[in-house]
Amino acid sequence: MTTISGRVDIGLNAFVVPMAQTIVGSMADGRPNFMAAAWLTRVNSKPPLLGVAISKRHHTHAAITATGQFSVNVPTVEMTAVTDYVGLVSGAWVDKSGLFEVFHGHLDAAPLIRQCPLAIECRVYTAVDLPGDTFFIGEIAGAWCADDCLDADGAPDPRLLRPVLLTMPDNRYWSMGDVVGRAWHDGKALRGGGGEAG
Amino acid sequence: MTTISGRVDIGLNAFVVPMAQTIVGSMADGRPNFMAAAWLTRVNSKPPLLGVAISKRHHTHAAITATGQFSVNVPTVEMTAVTDYVGLVSGAWVDKSGLFEVFHGHLDAAPLIRQCPLAIECRVYTAVDLPGDTFFIGEIAGAWCADDCLDADGAPDPRLLRPVLLTMPDNRYWSMGDVVGRAWHDGKALRGGGGEAG
Repeated sequence: MTTISGRVDIGLNAFVVPMAQTIVGSMADGRPNFMAAAWLTRVNSKPPLLGVAISKRHHTHAAITATGQFSVNVPTVEMTAVTDYVGLVSGAWVDKSGLFEVFHGHLDAAPLIRQCPLAIECRVYTAVDLPGDTFFIGEIAGAWCADDCLDADGAPDPRLLRPVLLTMPDNRYWSMGDVVGRAWHDGKALRGGGGEAG
Repeated sequence: MTTISGRVDIGLNAFVVPMAQTIVGSMADGRPNFMAAAWLTRVNSKPPLLGVAISKRHHTHAAITATGQFSVNVPTVEMTAVTDYVGLVSGAWVDKSGLFEVFHGHLDAAPLIRQCPLAIECRVYTAVDLPGDTFFIGEIAGAWCADDCLDADGAPDPRLLRPVLLTMPDNRYWSMGDVVGRAWHDGKALRGGGGEAG
């Protein structure tokens, strides 16, 4: 065990802690297909781009490649079992189209999940070819939130969305905790002067 | 206000909920520099790749471009103010090198933060040029965890790391909550048969 400066070498397969657990939707063979996905992030503001890493082995990979569209759906903590399930079984073998009630926003190959209080539809902007995964970067074409999960400003309220977090390699799902601060605000007390951002 | 199927159109600037709040380290003008970053994700398993979106306007962007290295540091909930601060002031104007105690693992231009219980050092694998940001995809060269934050398997324990989450556009920091399930496990009860993964 290598230790530097009181820190232990945990190997190269480290993870971001925690990850938002989502369900990626696509149209495969004319049917909605879904898989659990947690390797995703926004990557650009204007235009609004969101990227998700999908293993080339997955049925979803072929579907997104074929249609150029996908959805990102944010399940609630009550949906962990079905969310986990769509990550366990392949759409190549199991028809997952009946698991959720689907609706469509602006795109025809980005099935949105009615049971998820937040659902985002994307059109592929570019696809980054990596050794095992493709990082599909999508331009957000629409975003839909349950009206009872909006805050006073009309934005999704995380307390009401009750999203699921994933940690690896311990492979646990978590709820969100409490508010511990305000972003682009709490650091002002430390600011003696100077310009914006890192 | 457009509504489809009981879902409200919240516009195109939707976010992943929630995001892990990290501090990206780089070497700028020979000094450690730090910025708050929450747009990041693992993107590939083998090799282990981790991507982070950095605005082209940021000092960190020039630093990573120049050195080809960066670090991703995971602060605790006790560190929200300083984490927020490094996102408010630019390294172009303010020397942030003294904010943290720095150590190095395998790389010389990926300063690791001693105060953060988990710190990951990356070598740029490829850089994806986007309109406002560059998505720097780094290969993980080392990952270091405080020994008192490891679980019985020697992996980082999220309960002990106490990471900070960010939500947008409400711009709040959050703690993690409780365990609500087991990944690659809880869905088995729903599995009637079939192959692996979505």
